[in-house]
Amino acid sequence: MTTHLQDLSFDLASLRAAYAAGTPVRAVIAEAMRRCASDENHAFIHRLTDAEIEPYVAHLDGVDPASLPLYGVPFAIKDNIDLAHIPTTAGCPEYAYTPGESAFLVQQLIAAGTVPLGKANLDQFATGLNGTRSPYGACRNAFNPAFVSGGSSSGSAVSVAKGWVSFSLGTDTAGSGRVPASFNNLIGLKPSIGLLSATGVVPACRSVDTVSIFALTAADAQAVLAVAAVYDEADAFSRAAKPFGVDFSAGPFRFGVPRPQDLNFFGNDAAIALFAQSIERLHALGGTAVEIDLTPFLEAARLLYEGPWVAERYVAIQDFIDAQPDAVFPPVRTIIEGGKAKTAADAFAASYKLKALKRVCDAVWQDIDCLLTPTAGTIYRIADMQADPIRLNSNLGYYTNFMNLLDYAAVAVPAGFQASGDAQGLPWGVTLAAPAFKDVPLLRLADRFHRAQAALSIGATSAKLADTPAIHSTDLPKGSNTAGTVKVAVCGAHLSGLPLNWQLTQRGARLLGAVQSAPEYKFYALAGGPVQRPGMVRVNEGGAAIDMEVWELPAEHFGSFVDGIPAPLGIGKVKLADGSWVSGFVCEAVGVEGGTEITQLGSWRAWLAQQ
Amino acid sequence: MTTHLQDLSFDLASLRAAYAAGTPVRAVIAEAMRRCASDENHAFIHRLTDAEIEPYVAHLDGVDPASLPLYGVPFAIKDNIDLAHIPTTAGCPEYAYTPGESAFLVQQLIAAGTVPLGKANLDQFATGLNGTRSPYGACRNAFNPAFVSGGSSSGSAVSVAKGWVSFSLGTDTAGSGRVPASFNNLIGLKPSIGLLSATGVVPACRSVDTVSIFALTAADAQAVLAVAAVYDEADAFSRAAKPFGVDFSAGPFRFGVPRPQDLNFFGNDAAIALFAQSIERLHALGGTAVEIDLTPFLEAARLLYEGPWVAERYVAIQDFIDAQPDAVFPPVRTIIEGGKAKTAADAFAASYKLKALKRVCDAVWQDIDCLLTPTAGTIYRIADMQADPIRLNSNLGYYTNFMNLLDYAAVAVPAGFQASGDAQGLPWGVTLAAPAFKDVPLLRLADRFHRAQAALSIGATSAKLADTPAIHSTDLPKGSNTAGTVKVAVCGAHLSGLPLNWQLTQRGARLLGAVQSAPEYKFYALAGGPVQRPGMVRVNEGGAAIDMEVWELPAEHFGSFVDGIPAPLGIGKVKLADGSWVSGFVCEAVGVEGGTEITQLGSWRAWLAQQ
Repeated sequence: MTTHLQDLSFDLASLRAAYAAGTPVRAVIAEAMRRCASDENHAFIHRLTDAEIEPYVAHLDGVDPASLPLYGVPFAIKDNIDLAHIPTTAGCPEYAYTPGESAFLVQQLIAAGTVPLGKANLDQFATGLNGTRSPYGACRNAFNPAFVSGGSSSGSAVSVAKGWVSFSLGTDTAGSGRVPASFNNLIGLKPSIGLLSATGVVPACRSVDTVSIFALTAADAQAVLAVAAVYDEADAFSRAAKPFGVDFSAGPFRFGVPRPQDLNFFGNDAAIALFAQSIERLHALGGTAVEIDLTPFLEAARLLYEGPWVAERYVAIQDFIDAQPDAVFPPVRTIIEGGKAKTAADAFAASYKLKALKRVCDAVWQDIDCLLTPTAGTIYRIADMQADPIRLNSNLGYYTNFMNLLDYAAVAVPAGFQASGDAQGLPWGVTLAAPAFKDVPLLRLADRFHRAQAALSIGATSAKLADTPAIHSTDLPKGSNTAGTVKVAVCGAHLSGLPLNWQLTQRGARLLGAVQSAPEYKFYALAGGPVQRPGMVRVNEGGAAIDMEVWELPAEHFGSFVDGIPAPLGIGKVKLADGSWVSGFVCEAVGVEGGTEITQLGSWRAWLAQQ
Repeated sequence: MTTHLQDLSFDLASLRAAYAAGTPVRAVIAEAMRRCASDENHAFIHRLTDAEIEPYVAHLDGVDPASLPLYGVPFAIKDNIDLAHIPTTAGCPEYAYTPGESAFLVQQLIAAGTVPLGKANLDQFATGLNGTRSPYGACRNAFNPAFVSGGSSSGSAVSVAKGWVSFSLGTDTAGSGRVPASFNNLIGLKPSIGLLSATGVVPACRSVDTVSIFALTAADAQAVLAVAAVYDEADAFSRAAKPFGVDFSAGPFRFGVPRPQDLNFFGNDAAIALFAQSIERLHALGGTAVEIDLTPFLEAARLLYEGPWVAERYVAIQDFIDAQPDAVFPPVRTIIEGGKAKTAADAFAASYKLKALKRVCDAVWQDIDCLLTPTAGTIYRIADMQADPIRLNSNLGYYTNFMNLLDYAAVAVPAGFQASGDAQGLPWGVTLAAPAFKDVPLLRLADRFHRAQAALSIGATSAKLADTPAIHSTDLPKGSNTAGTVKVAVCGAHLSGLPLNWQLTQRGARLLGAVQSAPEYKFYALAGGPVQRPGMVRVNEGGAAIDMEVWELPAEHFGSFVDGIPAPLGIGKVKLADGSWVSGFVCEAVGVEGGTEITQLGSWRAWLAQQ
């Protein structure tokens, strides 16, 4: 058993299989603790002791593993998120406090069966993107300890990449949930702001913070999101998930790519090649690249550190930093104390500027479904970062700083390994972004993108991505579910290219495919016009299969579509050839009078061709 | 003709009738200019000269009056809103500039046929609620010149109340579009933030400003709104109108009333009586009063002047006030310069507080459709206001300051005249408020409330409200139209009180009434269950009229309703007894097999009663 456990990959599918095969949860957690204990990366600030873990394991005693969505899943928590009775340091021992209860979203995860193993290292007060700004030691990259791990959620990323835990919680204001994912070959989900509760989280910039999720696969990230995304009455920034609308991830889709002059790889030629490959990979998945001007995005990005938002960092720890300024790590202190000097006039003026920039940036979503950028242009050695801590850190946020200010969701996804240069052998990643609440289509597309790289291992482990399952389409946060769209079968003037098809496309519908009805319909060219229309009447005898198309459209726009349909047509349920029923056009029997029966043609297009 | 024109009420219906009868637009505008010239109230900062008006009148030469929605309608513009080639002073001569073009929304109005007559007096930089803070003279109440007009849109209100112009534009940050309406017997529409463009408007607190509309009737305010509410790409705060959902104004509706301990009339007993009458009036209109705790609303209100939002006033005129502080009216200068000292940390901390308060306040909309409050508890004499300018001004904003911070729409509506006390004979008003984008239902309810006071005159004129038409339900801003809801006729398990009725009510539907179908349907109790359902099949012979109910529900929720209907039922068009067609339940003919024909009963309830 021990040998077996040592080889067990902690991706969720492998864990579930182990539990289904009877592996005891205590054995898995003991193995996870053993792995965590090998931490030479400074990934953890505090690893839970046997006694501290016991209540979480005891919670699972006698529980059917299949009854909890995340039964026995070990995870790590960035140390700016509360775990009950364990100090929250935010990377600053002098700041530490011991919360009486866990953060709201940690409570959701524990209730779902997860077991917290440790509090993960971070750039102090989540201020940084590199992972070296911690008195608990610079966090080392999971692939090469000479390199930065990325930050601020440094330990969260490394503990997952190393295979010590299944997933981890980070936070992300400027890129802290994405840059470390890129540097450690992970999925880094930066959810829509407000989707994950911030109750029990030490704020960085409270108005633009989000908790983030690191996982080995997109499927795992989505499974965690589905459990964690619970609306929190007590968090004024909490937002319930919304239907994500039409799912672009299946393709065809349009993806934005920055103009060449907007790209910056900071001298990393290997990354240039990987980005070019990533564009090709999206093409192969059914995407069409659209070149976009990144200037307004980059301008918004600059506001985050040059503008008044740093004052939020000051507000978050004002009492502490005023009392003990020397307790704060030097580059962090410089940044946070910079927030003191900003005036309310600065803050409002910058908010106007952001509002105007968002108007400009949002216009791109008319042309693209998602945006593809590098996650970070390059990576640095720890020694180099420490020698030039502000400038090099800024470089890491070039593509990430604008995302939360503009209220977009983003998923960082592995894109291969650097083939040459100083960072040869280190992973590199891209980010897919879309407007808020598009988390699920982003994860689905990230999963397809990830899996298109068949040979990849997951994290820094030896487990193969190909051995894990693709994303599970029903693992969805409440509210962002498939009730967001409806399918409708059409048989006449709404078919692609026909005169009323615009009523579908203008509502954001997309064609799922051609189908045939069950052979139980009579088909009529109805009297009247000017737009000629057919009617399908279901019958017990003498019916035939009729050619149809199934379209998917946002549920919110389906009602006005239905309301606009004149008698004798309506929307009922149409039986398809495979026996399933789907919403679609039906015709009142009385309405076919005066029309022409064309059942034998089986197709409206065939009838039109005859006219 | 001259005698006739002198008596012409400038409400839109009277004006339209005059134009339809052949009255020349130049005669009407000359009469309006004559009236404006009598200004003893300090309502205008600048009245347009013949030459300045000429282009707007010339624009109408040879135009069919019926071809423009606001043909030949004279209006006034608060002097913080640009009119091309006329100085914009914002109430401060030293600040004045002469814009090359009109504000975006003024352009919309002019294109619709309106004629600007003057730039109206205001509390300087729109900072005040009383109308005395102007170097152009304290603006005098339209009913009694010893009393304040209310502000900051003082002249805008007085010029309409006096009957000099048909409507006017104000602005409203803290109550400037509502308090003067209350003091001058007018409708004061404070639209949802962003519905009216702010391009060409001197900001007060840019994040919570809105242009407002003063009119003699709710119908006139809505007609102006319909023209003016055009989405402005250039204004980052502009928001397109959204469907307003179910229209609560027709009743039954629930309205919030502050708890007795939250009400403050500042010693005005006549106002207490008028507020009690207002509650009774809403009851009579089909409303149910729900007592609500106003504390969180009042707490939000205090943030506007005690919190960092005053820094927005400083940002708006920073260069000017820094250079010429003495040019600013004393109480205005004190307030605006107070914004300099606020820090960005103050601003973010207050924004968190507001966010939390909004969460609490928004919860009331689960219990009520709209909120009823006094617009201002009392009114003051100009001399008293000038003697105690800060405290008494604050009293005027007690019920209004929270509205824009919380993103609510509001309509101030006349509620009668004070029967006793120092302000005997002066008008008094209430405000109806609801979440953003509910402007239209609010205006409709305001109109019903207004018209329930049959004897009222409009403004300070001798024209009777009863002689003007009620609100025109199709005069709607683009986007907030009736496509927002759909009507659906139901005949079975969705009827009131029956097992599937929750599918309607849970989607926010409301019962419009009982109807009968045309006598062209066969009616069947369908086979199957457990929920027993009927089906209506339209036929050419042997049909009967079937009892139905028509429900109205938000279009955005209709799609999921339709998608959930199983075969053989669907939503098509049902012919009603009056010959009209409405979306409703239809049944595939094939689906009635195995069922029981109950056409002769004509009613699902009759069938159920037999079971």
